[in-house]
Amino acid sequence: MLVKMRRDATPDEVKTVESKLHDLGFKTGRLEGTELTLVGVYGDISKLPAGEIAELPGVDQLIPISRAYKRVSQKGGPDKPIYATVSIGKVVCGGDALAVIAGPCSVESEPQIMEAARLVKEAGADALRGGVVKYRSSPYSGWEGLGASDAESLKQGLALIVKAGRTFGLPTVVEILDQADLRIYEDAGVDCLQIGEPNSKNQALLNALRTTPLPVIHKRGNSLDTEAYLLWVERMMTGGKENVILCERGIASCNRYTRNTLDVGSIAAFRYQLSGLPVAVDASHGTGIRDLVHPVTLAGILAGASVVLTESHPNPLIAKSDGHQGLFPEQLAALVKAARATWTLRRELDASYLPSATLDLAYKDRMAEDRQRFFGK
Amino acid sequence: MLVKMRRDATPDEVKTVESKLHDLGFKTGRLEGTELTLVGVYGDISKLPAGEIAELPGVDQLIPISRAYKRVSQKGGPDKPIYATVSIGKVVCGGDALAVIAGPCSVESEPQIMEAARLVKEAGADALRGGVVKYRSSPYSGWEGLGASDAESLKQGLALIVKAGRTFGLPTVVEILDQADLRIYEDAGVDCLQIGEPNSKNQALLNALRTTPLPVIHKRGNSLDTEAYLLWVERMMTGGKENVILCERGIASCNRYTRNTLDVGSIAAFRYQLSGLPVAVDASHGTGIRDLVHPVTLAGILAGASVVLTESHPNPLIAKSDGHQGLFPEQLAALVKAARATWTLRRELDASYLPSATLDLAYKDRMAEDRQRFFGK
Amino acid sequence: MLVKMRRDATPDEVKTVESKLHDLGFKTGRLEGTELTLVGVYGDISKLPAGEIAELPGVDQLIPISRAYKRVSQKGGPDKPIYATVSIGKVVCGGDALAVIAGPCSVESEPQIMEAARLVKEAGADALRGGVVKYRSSPYSGWEGLGASDAESLKQGLALIVKAGRTFGLPTVVEILDQADLRIYEDAGVDCLQIGEPNSKNQALLNALRTTPLPVIHKRGNSLDTEAYLLWVERMMTGGKENVILCERGIASCNRYTRNTLDVGSIAAFRYQLSGLPVAVDASHGTGIRDLVHPVTLAGILAGASVVLTESHPNPLIAKSDGHQGLFPEQLAALVKAARATWTLRRELDASYLPSATLDLAYKDRMAEDRQRFFGK
Amino acid sequence: MLVKMRRDATPDEVKTVESKLHDLGFKTGRLEGTELTLVGVYGDISKLPAGEIAELPGVDQLIPISRAYKRVSQKGGPDKPIYATVSIGKVVCGGDALAVIAGPCSVESEPQIMEAARLVKEAGADALRGGVVKYRSSPYSGWEGLGASDAESLKQGLALIVKAGRTFGLPTVVEILDQADLRIYEDAGVDCLQIGEPNSKNQALLNALRTTPLPVIHKRGNSLDTEAYLLWVERMMTGGKENVILCERGIASCNRYTRNTLDVGSIAAFRYQLSGLPVAVDASHGTGIRDLVHPVTLAGILAGASVVLTESHPNPLIAKSDGHQGLFPEQLAALVKAARATWTLRRELDASYLPSATLDLAYKDRMAEDRQRFFGK
Repeated sequence: MLVKMRRDATPDEVKTVESKLHDLGFKTGRLEGTELTLVGVYGDISKLPAGEIAELPGVDQLIPISRAYKRVSQKGGPDKPIYATVSIGKVVCGGDALAVIAGPCSVESEPQIMEAARLVKEAGADALRGGVVKYRSSPYSGWEGLGASDAESLKQGLALIVKAGRTFGLPTVVEILDQADLRIYEDAGVDCLQIGEPNSKNQALLNALRTTPLPVIHKRGNSLDTEAYLLWVERMMTGGKENVILCERGIASCNRYTRNTLDVGSIAAFRYQLSGLPVAVDASHGTGIRDLVHPVTLAGILAGASVVLTESHPNPLIAKSDGHQGLFPEQLAALVKAARATWTLRRELDASYLPSATLDLAYKDRMAEDRQRFFGK
Repeated sequence: MLVKMRRDATPDEVKTVESKLHDLGFKTGRLEGTELTLVGVYGDISKLPAGEIAELPGVDQLIPISRAYKRVSQKGGPDKPIYATVSIGKVVCGGDALAVIAGPCSVESEPQIMEAARLVKEAGADALRGGVVKYRSSPYSGWEGLGASDAESLKQGLALIVKAGRTFGLPTVVEILDQADLRIYEDAGVDCLQIGEPNSKNQALLNALRTTPLPVIHKRGNSLDTEAYLLWVERMMTGGKENVILCERGIASCNRYTRNTLDVGSIAAFRYQLSGLPVAVDASHGTGIRDLVHPVTLAGILAGASVVLTESHPNPLIAKSDGHQGLFPEQLAALVKAARATWTLRRELDASYLPSATLDLAYKDRMAEDRQRFFGK
Repeated sequence: MLVKMRRDATPDEVKTVESKLHDLGFKTGRLEGTELTLVGVYGDISKLPAGEIAELPGVDQLIPISRAYKRVSQKGGPDKPIYATVSIGKVVCGGDALAVIAGPCSVESEPQIMEAARLVKEAGADALRGGVVKYRSSPYSGWEGLGASDAESLKQGLALIVKAGRTFGLPTVVEILDQADLRIYEDAGVDCLQIGEPNSKNQALLNALRTTPLPVIHKRGNSLDTEAYLLWVERMMTGGKENVILCERGIASCNRYTRNTLDVGSIAAFRYQLSGLPVAVDASHGTGIRDLVHPVTLAGILAGASVVLTESHPNPLIAKSDGHQGLFPEQLAALVKAARATWTLRRELDASYLPSATLDLAYKDRMAEDRQRFFGK
Repeated sequence: MLVKMRRDATPDEVKTVESKLHDLGFKTGRLEGTELTLVGVYGDISKLPAGEIAELPGVDQLIPISRAYKRVSQKGGPDKPIYATVSIGKVVCGGDALAVIAGPCSVESEPQIMEAARLVKEAGADALRGGVVKYRSSPYSGWEGLGASDAESLKQGLALIVKAGRTFGLPTVVEILDQADLRIYEDAGVDCLQIGEPNSKNQALLNALRTTPLPVIHKRGNSLDTEAYLLWVERMMTGGKENVILCERGIASCNRYTRNTLDVGSIAAFRYQLSGLPVAVDASHGTGIRDLVHPVTLAGILAGASVVLTESHPNPLIAKSDGHQGLFPEQLAALVKAARATWTLRRELDASYLPSATLDLAYKDRMAEDRQRFFGK
């Protein structure tokens, strides 16, 4: 965090800011430009009383600097590879095992979600997903989910997926669209909430989820840079919340063939450089094409994901929404098997991954010698 | 709208769908493929009981086709240049005069918003904007608006801008972030609501605004295609709501220099091809650079905007948010004057705009002759 | 320009670099980090013997900093509004008058280009454009221009447009695709070369054009940031070339409705902040839709363009390429008239444009007072 | 391919077009609209004499339809999984083994490239890459490769990498920037040419490479849609050329953290749906961050790549270009080992990949039954 002083701030005002920060336990550094002074603040920024500092005389504004997502990154990064785990019911995400969450785009009826859950269990997946209220890009699509009409329908829809999950021993993941419904989701016994892509920057929703004990899967908005997304995730965590799972589900680009562009570079950055939180890959939305879900999911695991989110349906040809990207039951079973094999490989390979930090100094010491060898100087 | 029949639908099921649609007053066309049959539906799709049709035997799903935003487009387009007007208080948007809405990014204090309003009035603008709850990309920015803490603070913040607007005879435009607050905004006497870019696809918010009598400025999401955006606007209008204003405020692209990429092509498409709704241009967010707001706003007017949305501040150097893009008071006055001159020019030029439809047939008749002239055949 | 020293560079090596730069007439500044030292170089970077500096002991690399496009920007910017002019034959671009360049996508036959030229002249435009070799996104489109087969066909095709231009007193603008053909274009009597979007980063072509006396219109690549594009333009100018015209013709984005996204923010940045070179707007490729060319061209002029590039055809319905975006003759005439009226307005408005630099100090002086007024502190 | 008839075409003209196509061995289908008629052409479009058809009376234009890249796709796709192989020297790409091509961004001196080659060999890679003329985004970077000044320097630079490759038994891959230099590259004994991203749409270069016997790695332009790219690749292959390797190296997007966005969805689409050509993954440019190259390369292999292209340097800290993304020697060795393990896994997994085509009919047959089960109708 940088404290930007006003251009007319006095030296005394700068000193007051620094003293205040020291009193609060932060370290500071000063950058004096010809125009104005910046005070750098070091320490656990998540505990900085920003409003209080902003009110001090001479302060212009607080500027979040790169890696301002302190809580998102606190347990991770190359220097501190202690990764967090987040539990969805009894399923541990980010731990030793890969977690696979599968299920239909939407809960369509009791027999449908029961059969879907049975097949998810049979395929070897760990948790059940299913939407009760659905985003639809057109208001005329004729289907917005069982729970779209009112609070009562929402309760009934949630009850169906919770029943299906419990019947087959699968924790449940359901998307929430409106903060006003939070209590209904919590009371229904859902095991994990999901923030969909269209709500990735929904400030009211993110603020409200700060206090829920439920874990949250937060999908990256499709026009958010890698780090800009982490700042929105950080918003949810500022009050102390820890059980959050990152999710890459594809971003917007020049691509027309695939629905979105799944960004494995960001998955790798989350895993190896920026965060300690578990990362989910959603290749269903990331490609929008049923037959690409398999290879792209596996790619996501090797890039760094430890959670798989995928759409499957007992018969996707009659799905009420997103049937083109839902897996057939046999495809789901094949994917779970392949994903677990890929996970095993990744755990082996992780042991041999060599970050630059382990080599950098040695090569720095050789710079003069190598320069002489290669360029004669 | 297309009704996609199941691949195993019987000819009788297709006929039943067609009969049902005819009974409802729609015309239909049939497209028989080797795999399945599509039934095209013609008429006012906004009145189609989509759920009912989707339930008929043999129906797979309803597919919205291009221009499925029937209500967005109903009064406009090249063939029917009868453009809609939307009133914000006593200010008419989309009519004979250009409407300029200016004001600070956020309402910061009573003296600040009163002074801002005075300067907006003095500059010759028509309405006052100002945020009471603010989006912040970082949760550590230390300022989320006067109304961020609770309902009471929201009421007090709204009261300030309403007072400022009324004092200077300016209707007020304020952003709403959460549908649960709608009644508070309505009761406060705000004259127009704004949906910000991060909430452009917030389904719960859009659904809730269907019933407000207040006009709504709906900002385009920065990764939404021209027509995809109109479908989200359409969502708000399906129940009969008419007083909606489109707003282009920049989209995501490869650009780094400007904050966003203001898309004049879409403004022109909204105005001349796709919609009858008034279109606003917001060059403050569209460029993010104070000194580009002036030329880019004028560009937006000639492209087709009839509403200008711009950020200004009594002294942007001390603004609590977005100070880098807020206009100085003198710049606002210069912009309003230039915008009105540009509007005068556009109205003159519109008379000489020649859409292809007026020429197409004549050149079709000359095709053979011209081919002979140019290519000897 | 920054000179980045190696991490193991000695203080003496840093001093040697600084001395060398001083001897060459540059000023320097030193930035000492904990890891390494950077030497900032100030002066006309286009005259810096970069290779020589890079070879000095202890130097790691040279880092171009923002605004490294010294020649592109040398005559412009907010502080120095002395804009360059570039002549295409007798037509002056960037001067007091707007220059309109129109003509068919491709030269299709002698009668076609003669008729096209006649109509361009009649419409009141200033110069004639037409491609003799054409980019085609598919190799199966069946038409790659009259000059596509060999050098002889290229000469003949060029002769046709030059003849047409001279007959009607219009200088000619033709795209060049391969540096190996440069002499053929020069000998043919073409008045201006164009670099198309697909070749915007074609280093061999840009290097070769450094020595041509012909003016060059360099179209921005559709994935190049505003400033990254200027660096590619700068490449052509490093050897002393001055007669270059910038051209915005649309960039890639989430948009599907329009072919590309015309970026008026960059046009404004070129004109008001980054460059003194004339700027052309090409709304034909910028939108790809005939009926949007008119409003979007006018938008480009108010944003800062002083050159209009547009496709027109005697009968676009029989054009061999890009017929969907070529203007009908009557539309061209209407556009030229409207563009000149817009230009007149812009020249009037430019007088009242207030850059922040003229206001900034006054508002800085008021910061304390305004803070007291608004926030009581 | 569609033949679009003119709107005034006579029924006889349509018939003549169809007869001509039948005579040439193509099948046709007719789509009669209210405005005009389209004739669909089925067969090996790469053999269609497009110019000849375009000249027939009544023909307006030829419209390439999706999958117009007939030669790119001829050996592949879900129905015909017979994948092509391309040989670079003795290394077979696209066959049973993974091919790893590594080496420095640029050939900097003889000792440097010899040492680089030695380390590439030692790491277990298969071929050596290195640029002799380099793209530089700034013309002031002070280094454009050993071969940048003239033909003689190009020959000498090429000789160095060829010598290094032959010394260590590694075929060589070098980028070509200008078609005029083709003979020099061929004569130098280079084993494979590379088309860089900036030249992905360089029509003159692609046309010239149609006749080279050397294999070509064609990098995807960073704003080209999946299929649009394949059409540019197809251009090179129209004359019969077969030894082409696709390469995904990242596309432009909203991302700032990584240099580009590596698109595994397109890699999967190339491999499993659109093409039979070998696919290379270049995570060096795809991420631009040394420590992300490892996981993202592995992701690319599981998505469908069978060729790895990666930058490595004996000491990247002193590399003259792109040092931030070049691997340290130990990292290269770790990557090659991990890549081969990943390849082994992918070959195992490919056996269990279930494309929808194998399941679709069975689920179609169950649609009525499932609908009854789930929805009671």
